[in-house]
Amino acid sequence: MRPENVVLSDDGRSVVIIDQTKLPGHTEYLALTTPEELYEAIFELKVRGAPAIGICAGMGLYVCANSFVECDETEFMNRLTKTSDYINSSRPTAVNLRHALERVEKAALRKRGYGVDAMLSEMRSECIAIQNEDIEMCRAISEYGLTLVKDGDGILTHCNAGPLATSLYGTGLGTLLLGKERGYTFHAYTDETRPLLQGARLTAYELNKAGIDVTLICDNMASIVMKQGRINACFVGCDRVAANGDTANKIGTSGVAVLAKYYGVPFYVFCPSSTIDFGCKTGADIKIEERSPDEIKTKFFSEPVAPSEVKCYNPAFDVTDAELITAIITEKGICRAPYTESLKICAAGDK
Amino acid sequence: MRPENVVLSDDGRSVVIIDQTKLPGHTEYLALTTPEELYEAIFELKVRGAPAIGICAGMGLYVCANSFVECDETEFMNRLTKTSDYINSSRPTAVNLRHALERVEKAALRKRGYGVDAMLSEMRSECIAIQNEDIEMCRAISEYGLTLVKDGDGILTHCNAGPLATSLYGTGLGTLLLGKERGYTFHAYTDETRPLLQGARLTAYELNKAGIDVTLICDNMASIVMKQGRINACFVGCDRVAANGDTANKIGTSGVAVLAKYYGVPFYVFCPSSTIDFGCKTGADIKIEERSPDEIKTKFFSEPVAPSEVKCYNPAFDVTDAELITAIITEKGICRAPYTESLKICAAGDK
Repeated sequence: MRPENVVLSDDGRSVVIIDQTKLPGHTEYLALTTPEELYEAIFELKVRGAPAIGICAGMGLYVCANSFVECDETEFMNRLTKTSDYINSSRPTAVNLRHALERVEKAALRKRGYGVDAMLSEMRSECIAIQNEDIEMCRAISEYGLTLVKDGDGILTHCNAGPLATSLYGTGLGTLLLGKERGYTFHAYTDETRPLLQGARLTAYELNKAGIDVTLICDNMASIVMKQGRINACFVGCDRVAANGDTANKIGTSGVAVLAKYYGVPFYVFCPSSTIDFGCKTGADIKIEERSPDEIKTKFFSEPVAPSEVKCYNPAFDVTDAELITAIITEKGICRAPYTESLKICAAGDK
Repeated sequence: MRPENVVLSDDGRSVVIIDQTKLPGHTEYLALTTPEELYEAIFELKVRGAPAIGICAGMGLYVCANSFVECDETEFMNRLTKTSDYINSSRPTAVNLRHALERVEKAALRKRGYGVDAMLSEMRSECIAIQNEDIEMCRAISEYGLTLVKDGDGILTHCNAGPLATSLYGTGLGTLLLGKERGYTFHAYTDETRPLLQGARLTAYELNKAGIDVTLICDNMASIVMKQGRINACFVGCDRVAANGDTANKIGTSGVAVLAKYYGVPFYVFCPSSTIDFGCKTGADIKIEERSPDEIKTKFFSEPVAPSEVKCYNPAFDVTDAELITAIITEKGICRAPYTESLKICAAGDK
């Protein structure tokens, strides 16, 4: 199995992505070749999921650099930095985006003095490395995930943390997908995840495509399926983990965690260790992005579902308190409370 | 102020309702004249809200009976029972539907021996009485509700239990609307209430129309607004209360109640005392209606939001355990735990 959501073309002239805004109705591939196309694809969420954005941006920077091949090294680096800054500005908050661009720039610098061709070759290798590391990271997370569940379990998911958001397997969904390869049968219950419906549009699509039994529910049905005993564990990804284990993820995640605690269901957060931000002491330090009311009232709908003059509150994320989280699973291992200790030890340790 | 959502026409030939499925974009009135039209209007939620369904069904039974006027009394009663059973089968969960139909049938029986015209006349009076009692009941519930909150409070609502669901004021929203008349300022946070969006389409519409400050949120944002301290109380209506206080209401209600308990926010259920079903010992005895996957995947949307082959689970209601409910407010007073005692005493007492 190879990634198909973000692929570097053999000639190095384009990054080919699945346009995630068209899923699940239409599987459309886009070949991105210019800085402007890359910026637009990231800004408009055609490619989304922090790891996938990073991989796409790194490959994109290499693709753009291929058109600077006639420049001397100094001019090459100038244009490279300018292009990198421009792509980075498409979603300034996504940490993976900046990391990936920096890695590809540094690859070019490593071969300075050996000519532009050598610089390009090193950049290409770095892009492939970033993607391969992502695949290995997701596979490692998923292996740990499989130790936490048993065959036949019902798993509740929120938002999308699957292959589309990464390269393969994903974080939150990786355990289900790896489990499928290993002969496990899981029963996934997938929150649709309003307002942008990533659960319905992407998670249900990915799990169904992989042949995993999946049942789509509205977000407010998480309580009844837990009460009925259908759910053995909740699986979510995350966008940022504070040093104490407080976790920012898609809006609604904290509600799922409160329900899980009430009904006695384990609540697991899956993420690369790079997502742990030791600069944030607690969740209170994590800034929550607020988005347009149109996402609630008009987007996706054939006509507006609320009077136009009604106000909306539309936070894109919420923070789940560490006390609600059963374990945080990274590629380096499984962390449990007290997280202030376990996350530090985990992040410091080699895999 | 008179009801406008369910009205018996002067000639007794139709029940006129606002088609709630067309709100808030279009205010369309429908004149229902046949059992089939009544069944369809209730089944398809053109009229919804347990009290409003009861009022509509009672009036509808009378309207249908007007076409049996040539029958003898025995044949009249046979056809009445058959029609009543048919209308009753349109929705299983709400108790008011059956109650109202039984009251109108009993009205006919009271005048047996006096001729079909007398029976019809008594039925008409009963329909008007049911509606007037509903108005008084909602006003009384709302008065009690006002004793539980203070000026400036933030109130979270789920689904719609306003005038559209009753005749005037409503149950869950009555306190807000009566409070507005009395000069209170409330800040309502309204769950959109997937899949059918009664919160967005109806509650936001009703509160906004009444000049009450209302902020629409997605269901999965209830957790963040409680965590932020914006919510001083949760207000919901209900479809059926078991003898022990377990309460069936719109899907998602139980989740709101779990969140409220976790965040220390009072959770109030507003309902007519007739909603208490002493035949149900606990919530486990309440049958939960399951509805079409189309409500989750296609309805309202400009195109399907999930792959067509993906399964959905779509329960229309859930049961909130009595232990999560701070108080149940009826027209006869405020009941608190242990509900097995307080509900019995409340229901037995005269107002």
